[in-house]
Amino acid sequence: MKIIKNLALLLMLPIASLAQQKNLVQYVSPIIGTAKMGHTFPGATVPFGAVQLSPDTDTIPYAMNGKYNGDVYKYCAGYQYDDPTIVGFSHTHFSGTGHSDLGDLLVMPTVGKLQMNPGTADNPQSGYRSGYSHDNEEAEANYYKVMLDDPKVLAELTTSTRVGFHRYTFPKSDQSHIILDLKSGIYNYDEKNVWTVVRVLNDTLMTGYMQSNGWARTRTVYFAIRFSKPFKNYGAQLDSKKSVYQGFWRKFNQTDNFADLAGRNLKMHFDFDTEDQEQIQLKVALSPVSMKNALANMEAEVPHWDFDKVKADGQQLWEAELQKIKVDLLAEDDYVNFYTAMYHAALMPTVYMDVNGEYRGLDQEIHKAEGFTNYTSFSLWDTFRAFHPYMNIVNPKRNADMVSSMMAHYDQSVLKMLPIWSHYANDNWCMSGYHSVSVIVDAILKGVYKGDAEAALAACVQTANTRKYEGIGPYIDLGYVPDDVSGTSVSNTLEYAYDDWCIAQLAKHLGKDDVYATFSKRAENWRNLYDESIGFMRPKDSKGKFREDFDLLETHGQGFIEGNTWNYSLYVPHNPEALMETMGGKKRLSAYLDSLFTMHLPDKFFANTEDITREGIIGNYVHGNEPAHHVVYFYNTVGEAWKGQSRIRMILENQYHTGHDGLGGNDDCGQMSAWYLFSSMGFYPVSPGSDEYWIGSPAVKSAEIALDGGKTFRIEAANQSKKNVYVKEVKLNGKVISNHKIKHSDITNGGVLSFVMSSKPVKK
Amino acid sequence: MKIIKNLALLLMLPIASLAQQKNLVQYVSPIIGTAKMGHTFPGATVPFGAVQLSPDTDTIPYAMNGKYNGDVYKYCAGYQYDDPTIVGFSHTHFSGTGHSDLGDLLVMPTVGKLQMNPGTADNPQSGYRSGYSHDNEEAEANYYKVMLDDPKVLAELTTSTRVGFHRYTFPKSDQSHIILDLKSGIYNYDEKNVWTVVRVLNDTLMTGYMQSNGWARTRTVYFAIRFSKPFKNYGAQLDSKKSVYQGFWRKFNQTDNFADLAGRNLKMHFDFDTEDQEQIQLKVALSPVSMKNALANMEAEVPHWDFDKVKADGQQLWEAELQKIKVDLLAEDDYVNFYTAMYHAALMPTVYMDVNGEYRGLDQEIHKAEGFTNYTSFSLWDTFRAFHPYMNIVNPKRNADMVSSMMAHYDQSVLKMLPIWSHYANDNWCMSGYHSVSVIVDAILKGVYKGDAEAALAACVQTANTRKYEGIGPYIDLGYVPDDVSGTSVSNTLEYAYDDWCIAQLAKHLGKDDVYATFSKRAENWRNLYDESIGFMRPKDSKGKFREDFDLLETHGQGFIEGNTWNYSLYVPHNPEALMETMGGKKRLSAYLDSLFTMHLPDKFFANTEDITREGIIGNYVHGNEPAHHVVYFYNTVGEAWKGQSRIRMILENQYHTGHDGLGGNDDCGQMSAWYLFSSMGFYPVSPGSDEYWIGSPAVKSAEIALDGGKTFRIEAANQSKKNVYVKEVKLNGKVISNHKIKHSDITNGGVLSFVMSSKPVKK
Repeated sequence: MKIIKNLALLLMLPIASLAQQKNLVQYVSPIIGTAKMGHTFPGATVPFGAVQLSPDTDTIPYAMNGKYNGDVYKYCAGYQYDDPTIVGFSHTHFSGTGHSDLGDLLVMPTVGKLQMNPGTADNPQSGYRSGYSHDNEEAEANYYKVMLDDPKVLAELTTSTRVGFHRYTFPKSDQSHIILDLKSGIYNYDEKNVWTVVRVLNDTLMTGYMQSNGWARTRTVYFAIRFSKPFKNYGAQLDSKKSVYQGFWRKFNQTDNFADLAGRNLKMHFDFDTEDQEQIQLKVALSPVSMKNALANMEAEVPHWDFDKVKADGQQLWEAELQKIKVDLLAEDDYVNFYTAMYHAALMPTVYMDVNGEYRGLDQEIHKAEGFTNYTSFSLWDTFRAFHPYMNIVNPKRNADMVSSMMAHYDQSVLKMLPIWSHYANDNWCMSGYHSVSVIVDAILKGVYKGDAEAALAACVQTANTRKYEGIGPYIDLGYVPDDVSGTSVSNTLEYAYDDWCIAQLAKHLGKDDVYATFSKRAENWRNLYDESIGFMRPKDSKGKFREDFDLLETHGQGFIEGNTWNYSLYVPHNPEALMETMGGKKRLSAYLDSLFTMHLPDKFFANTEDITREGIIGNYVHGNEPAHHVVYFYNTVGEAWKGQSRIRMILENQYHTGHDGLGGNDDCGQMSAWYLFSSMGFYPVSPGSDEYWIGSPAVKSAEIALDGGKTFRIEAANQSKKNVYVKEVKLNGKVISNHKIKHSDITNGGVLSFVMSSKPVKK
Repeated sequence: MKIIKNLALLLMLPIASLAQQKNLVQYVSPIIGTAKMGHTFPGATVPFGAVQLSPDTDTIPYAMNGKYNGDVYKYCAGYQYDDPTIVGFSHTHFSGTGHSDLGDLLVMPTVGKLQMNPGTADNPQSGYRSGYSHDNEEAEANYYKVMLDDPKVLAELTTSTRVGFHRYTFPKSDQSHIILDLKSGIYNYDEKNVWTVVRVLNDTLMTGYMQSNGWARTRTVYFAIRFSKPFKNYGAQLDSKKSVYQGFWRKFNQTDNFADLAGRNLKMHFDFDTEDQEQIQLKVALSPVSMKNALANMEAEVPHWDFDKVKADGQQLWEAELQKIKVDLLAEDDYVNFYTAMYHAALMPTVYMDVNGEYRGLDQEIHKAEGFTNYTSFSLWDTFRAFHPYMNIVNPKRNADMVSSMMAHYDQSVLKMLPIWSHYANDNWCMSGYHSVSVIVDAILKGVYKGDAEAALAACVQTANTRKYEGIGPYIDLGYVPDDVSGTSVSNTLEYAYDDWCIAQLAKHLGKDDVYATFSKRAENWRNLYDESIGFMRPKDSKGKFREDFDLLETHGQGFIEGNTWNYSLYVPHNPEALMETMGGKKRLSAYLDSLFTMHLPDKFFANTEDITREGIIGNYVHGNEPAHHVVYFYNTVGEAWKGQSRIRMILENQYHTGHDGLGGNDDCGQMSAWYLFSSMGFYPVSPGSDEYWIGSPAVKSAEIALDGGKTFRIEAANQSKKNVYVKEVKLNGKVISNHKIKHSDITNGGVLSFVMSSKPVKK
C-alpha cells in the first residue's frame, strides 16, 4: 500500500515538469555493460524493482563433470552481448555483480515441435532457445524487445515493481507454446533446485513457488502467472530422480493437464493456437511470502492487460528518478553515460516486500515492515563506498529504508550480525569487512536515517565483535587478522579498521566515550600490517611474522581479495594523513600514486585475475575493482590536486563508454556508476562516515540536484571542456574553497558549487 | 486457545468421576500390536495428539542399491518389538498403517565418544543407537520408559498435544550427549530430506524446520526445542553433497557451535557434563506453520519443566476418553483389549493446527481454522468403515471437526477433490475409492456434522466426477472401471459404487432428486463386474470382456488391492439383498460365506501378500485387511445370524490379543480397533451412510456409552460367557428387535440394548 502511494507521489513530479523539460529517459541505454565483465542486464525494470525481467543468453552449469566451470562467472546477469542465442526471459537478475544467483522463472515462446530442453547455442534448433540479432533488439528503461528468429516471435517485456509483463506476438500456428522452465536458473549447479510447487488454478492462472540452494542458501520465490489467452493444453516434465511418491502411487497422469505439481526440477509448457500476429501476454508476479501474496501483488499493481500503460508508468518512474539531477554536458554521449549511470545506480538493492507490507525475514519467518520498505540484495563491500552515499543525497528516503532493512536483518539474525552480502533472507558473507556499519553510520551522521541510533550502534558493535567470523577474534586480540587464519587477512584488517572508525564516529556522535575509545583504537589497526621494509601492507601470521612468499601484484589468496597490495595499501580512507606519514610523507605517497597509475603490469596479472581487463586498468590502478576507488583523490592529500583532477577526468573518459562494452569491469550494483556520478559532478565521498566530500574535477558543464524538500544543489563549471580538466578555482556559494572539501550540509542546505576550469594545472 | 479450553473441559470430567470409579487408563497397553504387522507404536501421546513421541528401532532405507527394500514395510510405525536396539525417539508416527512416512526429529542420548551415525542393530556400539531389554521397558498411555543399555541412560517420554517431553537420566560423565538426527526418518529413502533449517537461539533453545518428500510429497515440520540444562557445546554434521554456498564462501566454521544451519541432511549433537543420575529434559514442540508458532505452542501447552505433570495431564485426557465407555467384561485380559482398542481408536487423525488456530492447507498457504479443530492423516480407505462411525457415537464433536477438515481440504484442492489418503497438507491418493464421501454423508445424516450440507454434497459430487482420477471417466461412461485402465479396477468399481450410494443418500436427504437419481444408478455399478459364470466379481476390459487369466485368490494387480475376489465380491454393503439375489440367493450366499471362513489357502497366498499372516486369516476371510470387515454380518442377510454370531465372537477372540503380538494385521489408524469395539458391544455399521447398525453378538457383559449431552446408551448381555456366543433374544428398551438392526437415533436418544446370550444357536 505504502509503495503504491510513494509511486503516486513520485509520479506527480515528472507530470508537472516534463512539459517544459527534456525527456531524460531517452538517454538510458541498458545495453551498456552487457558485454564482457560489465555484468549488467538489458531487460526491463522499474527503479529498485523486485522483478527485473531480462533475457538470458545462456544457462551455464556451475559444475561440469564435477569440476567448477569458470564460464559461469560470465553469466552473473544472465546475458552476454556476444552470445548468438536467447534461452528465455527470467524475472530476477543481479546488476553488475561478480558472483551470481537468481534467474528465476524462465519463460520462452516457441512454435512448432514441443522442445522442453534449452538446446545449445551452436544449434538452437535442438531446444527451445532461439537465435536473434542485435539489429532486432531494443533495450530502454523498463522496456526490452527482441525478435526471436527461430519461432518468429516478437518478444516484448516491461514491468511494475513486483510484476513482469510479457507480450509475445506469434505467427499463425496450431503449435504455439510458452515454455516455463522452473529448473533453469543462473548459477545452475546440479542441486540448486531444492523444491518447486505449481498449482494450475484454471486455464489462464497458475501459482507456485521455487525453493533453491544457490548463493543464497535457502531462497524461496513465490509466484502467480496469468495468461491473457486460455491455453488449450498444458503439461509438465518432472525430471527429478524417482521419488516414493511418484513411483508407488500414480493415480493421475501427472504429465498432461495435471494441476497439482511438485518436484525438484520442473518444466512446463502451455499450448495455444495462434493467428498471424496474435499477441499472447503474461503477467508474472513475485512474492517473498506466499502464492496468495504474489497474486495480490499482481492484482494491486497490474489489474489490467495494457502493456503500453505498464511500460509508460515504469518509464515515468524512471523519468522522475533521472530528473533528480539535471545536467548540462559536453557531448551527446556524455548524457547517455550520465543517465545510464543514474539508471544503473537505481537497480539494486531491490524491493523485497509485498504490497501488504509482508516479507520473509532472515529468520525465515514472515514479518510485516512497519514504517519502511524492505529491500534485499546488499552488495555492501561494493556499495558502501559511493552508492549508498549517493543515495543519501539523491534518494535519502530509500537509503533510510535500506538501513531499516539492514537493522531488521540484524534483529532477525541468530548470529547477531548485520548483513555482509545479503539477498533474499540470507547472508552469503561475501567479501571482506562488515560494511553495513559504514552505510548505517553514514546515514545517521548525515541525518538520513532517523531510526534508533543507539540500537544501530549496538548492532554495529555486536557485529564488529563477532569473534568467530573471518578472523575477528584474533583481530581484536592481536590488532590484525593473521595470515594463518584467513586468506584475505590484509583486506579484512584494513576494512575492519575503516569500519571500526565508522563505529567510533557514531559512538562519538552519541556520546558513548568508551565505545569511541575502543573503536578509535581499532581504527588504527591498519598500522599493524604495514611493512616498512617494503613500503606496503603485507600479511602477517599469528606470531607476528610477515609472510615471506609474497607477490606485490597478486590479488587473491595472499592476504588480499580483488586487489593487490599496490591497490590495497592505500585503503585507509579515514586517516590518509597518518597513512602518508607512515608511508614516508608526501613525496613518497606522491611517487606511489604516480607509479600506481603508470606502471606496466605483466600479462600473468590479467590471466589470473577475475573482474579485470586491460580496459579496466590504468597502470596498476584497477578501477574495475573497488578497493582503490578513493585513491585518485589522495592526490589532494599530497598537495597535488591537479594530478588527481587530470586522472579523474581520464578515468571518467577511459572507464565509462556507451555501447554494450561500455564498462571496464563489473558495475557492482551501482558502485561503479555512483563513482561516475560523484566524480562527474566534481566531488567524492572518500570516507563515508565522515560528512566530507573531497573535491575532484567535474566533467559536467553544470548539474542541478533536486533535493528532498525542494531545495537544489547546483554545480557549475565555467570554461568546461574535454581538455580543461584542471580546476583553477572552486567556490561554494561564492566563497573560495581552499581545503578541497565540502560538507554534506553544504549540499543539503542547497547552494552552488562553482568551478572555473582550465587546461593548465594549478600547482600550488 | 480453543484446544486448551477444550482440554480443560475434558479434564473436569475425570476429576469428578475418578473418585468413585475404577481408573481405566491402567488397561491401556500401547505395546499391543508392536510386533509383526500390527504396526502400532509404543510411545507417548495424548488423544489425537499432533506429537506422537515413540522409539524407533530401525531406520530402514526405502531403497538399497537402487532396489526397493521390502523390509521398509515393517517400520511403518518405526518400532518392531523383536528388534534388539533403539535408534532414538522421534516425534511423529502413524499408528497401524500399511505404508509410511514421518518419524521426524530423532533424539537420542549418548555417553562417551561422539557418534553421529546410528550404527547397526548387530553392532549398536558402532553408532549412537543402543541395546535395550523389554524387561526395562514400560509403555503406558502418554508415558514410555526404557533403560538404554549402552549409554546407561534412562529415557522417559510424555507429551501434550503439540509438545514432546523427554526426560533422560544420565550417569556421571563429561561426555554426555544428546543427538538430534534431522536426517533420520521413517521411509527414509535417499532423497527424502529436501531441506532442513536450524537456528540455535541460545544455549537452551533452538528452532527450525524440516522439509521432506516422502509419502507426503511436500511436507514441512516446524519445531522448537528447549533444553532444561544449557549445553556446553554443540555441533552439526551437514552431509549434503557439496553446495555452492558451502564450497565457495565459508566465513564460519559451520561444524562447531554455529547457530545458523541449513542443508539437505543435517545431524546435530549437544554436549553436557552430567553428574550421576542427573536428569536432562527436552521439550520439542511442533507446528505446521512456522518456527514461532512452534515456540508459541510450547509456551502455551508446557510452560514449565514438570515432566510428571505433563504425564498426568495427558493420562487424565486418556482417562476421560476411556470413561466414555464403561464396560463389564468376562476376563481381565478383555479389559486390556477393550481399552487398548479405545486407545488405538483415539490416535489418528491427529491435530494439525497451532494453538492460535493456524495451519498449513493443501494449497500450501497458511489458514486459520474458524470454528473447528483441523486434523490430518486420514487413512480413509480403512477408517470410513467403522472408525468414523465409532467417532460419530463416542467423539461426535471431533468427527464433525474431521469432516470440517476434509471440507477445508476440498476448498484448498486445485484438483477439486476431497481427501483420499491425506496427511500434512498433501494427498497421496492411496488405495481405492473416494471414501471421504462416506464419512461426510454418514456424519451429516447422523446429525453430527452441522456445516453446510449442500456444499458438502457439491464436494462429494465433484470428487466423484473427477474423470481423470483412477478410471472415474470410463467408470462413468461404462459403468465400471476397465481392467485395462486400472490395476485395481474391481476394487475401485465396487467402492465407487458404494460411495455413490452414499452420495445418493445425502442427495435424497437434501431433496436433490436429479443427483439422487444419477448416483443411485451409479450405486448399482457393482453389477457390471459380476461374472455369473464363476459367481465372483471379475475384472472386465473396456470392450466388455472379462479377464481370462484370473486367480480367485490373487490380491494384487489383477483388479484388486488388499483383498482377493473371494473377499471383495461381497463388497456391496449398501445393497446386500440385491447382491444375494445376483449371486443366486440365500443358499448360495450362505455357502459362499461358509467357504470363505473355512477354506484352506495355499502357502503362496501368504508369500505374495502384504499385511496378511496366518494369524490374520480365518479360512480365506482376511480380517487383517479391511474389504471384508462387514461380511460376517451378512449371515444376518441369509437368515443365519447364529453363524455370524459365532464367527464374530471367534474373530474377537482370535484376532485381538494382549501383548506385543496381539494384532493379526495392521491396526490401520483405529479401524481394526473400531471393529473390535463395535462388535464387542454387539452391533456394527455395515453400511455407513445408512443410519442402521446390524446386530451381531456382544462380548461384553455390559457396556455403557456416555453420549455428548449427558445421555447414556447401555448394552447388557444376560447369561454372557465365553461359550454363550449366541443371541437368544435382543431388546431395545424392552422391545424385542426382530430385524437384527438398530438405528443411530436409538443410540443417541439413550436407552438400553439388552441381549440374552446362549450357548445354543437360535436358528430361525
